[in-house]
Amino acid sequence: MAELLDFVVLSLLPPWCWRVAADWLRRGDSPNLVVRRLVAVRSHAEPNAAFALRARATEAVGRAAAGSITPIPWSDPAYPAALTTIADPPPVLWTRGCAAALSVPAVAIVGSRAASPYALSVAGQLAGDLAASGLAIVSGLARGVDSAAHRGALGAGGVTVAVLGSGVDVIYPPEHAPLAKAIDRDGAVVSELVPGTEPQPWLFPRRNRIISGLSRAVVVIEAGEKSGSLITARCALDQGRDVLAVPGNVLSGRNRGAHTLLRDGATIVESADDILEELGMPGVRAAGGGDIGGRAADPVLDCLVPGEACDLDEIAGRSGWNSPRLLPRLFELELQGLVRRVGGGRFVRIDRTC
Amino acid sequence: MAELLDFVVLSLLPPWCWRVAADWLRRGDSPNLVVRRLVAVRSHAEPNAAFALRARATEAVGRAAAGSITPIPWSDPAYPAALTTIADPPPVLWTRGCAAALSVPAVAIVGSRAASPYALSVAGQLAGDLAASGLAIVSGLARGVDSAAHRGALGAGGVTVAVLGSGVDVIYPPEHAPLAKAIDRDGAVVSELVPGTEPQPWLFPRRNRIISGLSRAVVVIEAGEKSGSLITARCALDQGRDVLAVPGNVLSGRNRGAHTLLRDGATIVESADDILEELGMPGVRAAGGGDIGGRAADPVLDCLVPGEACDLDEIAGRSGWNSPRLLPRLFELELQGLVRRVGGGRFVRIDRTC
Repeated sequence: MAELLDFVVLSLLPPWCWRVAADWLRRGDSPNLVVRRLVAVRSHAEPNAAFALRARATEAVGRAAAGSITPIPWSDPAYPAALTTIADPPPVLWTRGCAAALSVPAVAIVGSRAASPYALSVAGQLAGDLAASGLAIVSGLARGVDSAAHRGALGAGGVTVAVLGSGVDVIYPPEHAPLAKAIDRDGAVVSELVPGTEPQPWLFPRRNRIISGLSRAVVVIEAGEKSGSLITARCALDQGRDVLAVPGNVLSGRNRGAHTLLRDGATIVESADDILEELGMPGVRAAGGGDIGGRAADPVLDCLVPGEACDLDEIAGRSGWNSPRLLPRLFELELQGLVRRVGGGRFVRIDRTC
Repeated sequence: MAELLDFVVLSLLPPWCWRVAADWLRRGDSPNLVVRRLVAVRSHAEPNAAFALRARATEAVGRAAAGSITPIPWSDPAYPAALTTIADPPPVLWTRGCAAALSVPAVAIVGSRAASPYALSVAGQLAGDLAASGLAIVSGLARGVDSAAHRGALGAGGVTVAVLGSGVDVIYPPEHAPLAKAIDRDGAVVSELVPGTEPQPWLFPRRNRIISGLSRAVVVIEAGEKSGSLITARCALDQGRDVLAVPGNVLSGRNRGAHTLLRDGATIVESADDILEELGMPGVRAAGGGDIGGRAADPVLDCLVPGEACDLDEIAGRSGWNSPRLLPRLFELELQGLVRRVGGGRFVRIDRTC
């Protein structure tokens, strides 16, 4: 609890602190030491700053508990591994729904809020096909492409994650509250902002680094010249993620941003297969439909019990597969969101019902 | 005249001879020597072959003269320099219209015969803008994108060149005879086939190398997976020409060929500026063009994107006009040829240049 409060205090500091905090935490400093040092640097003129921050943090944790919101600090095993690799991971991910969803291999789908019927169709179809292949779909719960992507994933019985630019108890736009509830069931709604934070324009661009950070690849659909999706694409490039873009009408001006990405080397996307290929995964069509429910028995998967972490030797012993054969298969299962790598070189099977 | 007949005889030999003939002519052999050597190789069993070929050549030249068709042999200064650089230049270009048009720097625009309104709009607009920048537009006089490109160039008062897969006195499709006539005025209609040659399916793929050979760059619009335009694109690559492609809808399947070209490194085209930039020429927009035709703003027209069909509700929503006010205005725009009614009570904006 004390450590959680330290992380929450960190998350209340201005964003420039997080990169510094990340560096210090990575070199092994305790969160408490990091907090004390950063608060001292910032608040030399305000002797009560540390106290005030801790009070706000305590209040935020209380509010979260009352609202069934789980604060997942960086040090928590449930904190998504992908997000720890970015330069400035959020100190805390405030999470509604199913925390395990954050560790399913994911692809982000982002794009225009004032989306055309074409963009909405493409977003829904790609999200559905990718979700049926076992990938989680990450987006921003916005109007247009974002919500079409979330809905596409839900429609395929898949997992989807919404990253907000407000507290997870302040849904914006308000009409997406039922969508957020639907996402909660098998997926998650997350934010780096303490519960109760109102949406503000400047919070959204920063939020985008989490969308890309949670994902292996970012797919942009119908981004105009100044679309926020281009910020997400830039974050993705900074974070070493793949950037892909869907082409479209050149006369409407609606696809200028996406086409600029293609011009700059983004991979062109016509179907989910293009994305799966980019990720080195077998195609939807090749896999025969991507039916999550009706998967054939798998000797490696079958010897893992959900929730029980096993190391390589154990899995080798149980499955009869040697390491050179086992490792690629485990990686494949990981990509399909069926297995997760945990500390100490161990693997845990993800329960499909999450 | 004797030399012209030699070239016409060469053009009556099968196409494999032309590459050999080109090599021999380039090293300085006279056309007469080349003809005699090739005829001897081919016709050892037919002593009268040379005589028969010469008779057919004489007849073709006579027929051309009667039909105001100019045969331009490879050795003629009017023969387009660009075409001499390809591996197998046609020995003779049978030409209607204005031979000088063949030496104007050119861009080819090719694509689907069964083109969507979107492809027709893009073809017309690109051709018009490029023609207004002083480039000739080369295409194949086919239905769909080809003819839209020719018309776009004509609409901008520019030069356009049609390359046929039949004799230039056998227009195919027949309904394009008036278009061919319009092209004649400032442009040219050309073929490597002697006058009177009927169109045959196998003649069109070979014709495509002339379309690319006459051009500095080939722009592909809406090519499906097996489109003949992809043959033109391959010829262009073989000939060291730039290949560019216009992206479009990924759901229709109509752009698979164009998107494959983009995936393989073709330059993405959104506007004529992209093509001019690729060719190292100043842009249309920079030159103060941009608004095609200098049309005044129209709230109804402005909310329609060429090639995108919208129903009344959508147009009402975008323009802020209610139906009673909107319908008469749409009718007016329809009469002006600026809007077309398509299936399902929807309207599509027509670009004036095409």
